Amino acid sequence: MTRADSSAFLSRVAVSCALAVAAAGSASAADVVRYPLGGGNNFPIARAVEVPAGKSIIFHSGTTPAPADPKAEPGTPAYWGDTRTQALSAFGRIKESLDSLGLGFGNVVAMTVYLAGDPAKGGRMDFEGFMAAYTQFFGTKEQPNLPARSTVQVAGLVAPGMMVEIEVQLVK
Amino acid sequence: MTRADSSAFLSRVAVSCALAVAAAGSASAADVVRYPLGGGNNFPIARAVEVPAGKSIIFHSGTTPAPADPKAEPGTPAYWGDTRTQALSAFGRIKESLDSLGLGFGNVVAMTVYLAGDPAKGGRMDFEGFMAAYTQFFGTKEQPNLPARSTVQVAGLVAPGMMVEIEVQLVK
Amino acid sequence: MTRADSSAFLSRVAVSCALAVAAAGSASAADVVRYPLGGGNNFPIARAVEVPAGKSIIFHSGTTPAPADPKAEPGTPAYWGDTRTQALSAFGRIKESLDSLGLGFGNVVAMTVYLAGDPAKGGRMDFEGFMAAYTQFFGTKEQPNLPARSTVQVAGLVAPGMMVEIEVQLVK
Repeated sequence: MTRADSSAFLSRVAVSCALAVAAAGSASAADVVRYPLGGGNNFPIARAVEVPAGKSIIFHSGTTPAPADPKAEPGTPAYWGDTRTQALSAFGRIKESLDSLGLGFGNVVAMTVYLAGDPAKGGRMDFEGFMAAYTQFFGTKEQPNLPARSTVQVAGLVAPGMMVEIEVQLVK
Repeated sequence: MTRADSSAFLSRVAVSCALAVAAAGSASAADVVRYPLGGGNNFPIARAVEVPAGKSIIFHSGTTPAPADPKAEPGTPAYWGDTRTQALSAFGRIKESLDSLGLGFGNVVAMTVYLAGDPAKGGRMDFEGFMAAYTQFFGTKEQPNLPARSTVQVAGLVAPGMMVEIEVQLVK
Repeated sequence: MTRADSSAFLSRVAVSCALAVAAAGSASAADVVRYPLGGGNNFPIARAVEVPAGKSIIFHSGTTPAPADPKAEPGTPAYWGDTRTQALSAFGRIKESLDSLGLGFGNVVAMTVYLAGDPAKGGRMDFEGFMAAYTQFFGTKEQPNLPARSTVQVAGLVAPGMMVEIEVQLVK
């Protein structure tokens, strides 16, 4: 190997290394992609959210509300509040948790919503009540990021009268 | 450093760089691993699916069916169809969505199936009806990839009479 | 380029390569972070679990129990056992599965627990019965790692009388 060869080879090595660094770094640089529902459907969830390699994924436990009126009899509608009230409380608790992790609602990529039937709605889940809370935090001007989401009515949650449990997955 | 030393060192640097490139690249090159149920159990789901580092993960929203007969009275069995019909419709919608993302059922690594009770089955979920649809898309010669899966009967879905919601996670 | 230059450049290349290797390796070297519930709440689940880039994620199918007494009439409480018994059986099956994958309960980062109503508990899910099983495997001296978790009461599981289905996600 001549000095010229050495120099050329060194350059090639340097380029290879630069490419290696770029390859290692590119994954974390890629952005989360949120696909809209499409077809003129403006319902505020994403059809799908793509998390590129190189991101941390955070699994968050299901979050339930605090009692609306802790002095009321436990399990009663007065104690827990309606679905909208419970959802606002649960989202508030999630926000507190995310704040402490250096995250926000904009980091949420997926959400599962478990609603229990509302006696005031003939035993059906109060989907509209839940949405009235949800839309204060997702799909707003300040926080436009939408998660992929599933919402189902369950037969019950951990405490009688509790009607909302919200689970989220996030990325950073 | 002599020229011989330099050459030997260059070789070592080149090898290190090659290893660095290999290390950075190996994650994305690794394949998804699908573990069968085992024990002679041929039920068409995977016991577990391992997604190696370096893959993108796609969270897809829960997908519900289109009405089987939009002219029937909303909420009636005629409007939505039975569980098999609803599942075929939901899978068809998922396929459309995946097509537009450049993905297919073979990319599905996990699935959660929420079935509501079927009045025609004494209020129990029609698991067999769901499976009759599922097996057209998973575990076939054309599409042998099986997802990890959970299937539960929920108390209700977003619209009365709706009996199927399917959520999937995918990799690419 | 003089020999001295060459040597200095080589050193810089070597450092760059070392950094590239470090960058590529750092993701897989990073540890899973488990955030406690906080606020003096000692309930044995994590508030959130963070999975850094570079880890494999394993999606495991929902696991149901084996019959407690296969000779009893299928679907009866004697056949399946109570919620605690069913949860112990399901966790035992998950352990077997994880053993075969080279994993353990300490690798679990997220868990979804689906419980059906227990006729012996007035149709409510037997949350305490489930916890009596769960706490044998999570939050012990031998296995202190806690998952993010959601627990809901569903309307039913795949077989009549079955009251426990447990789904886990893991990392390695």
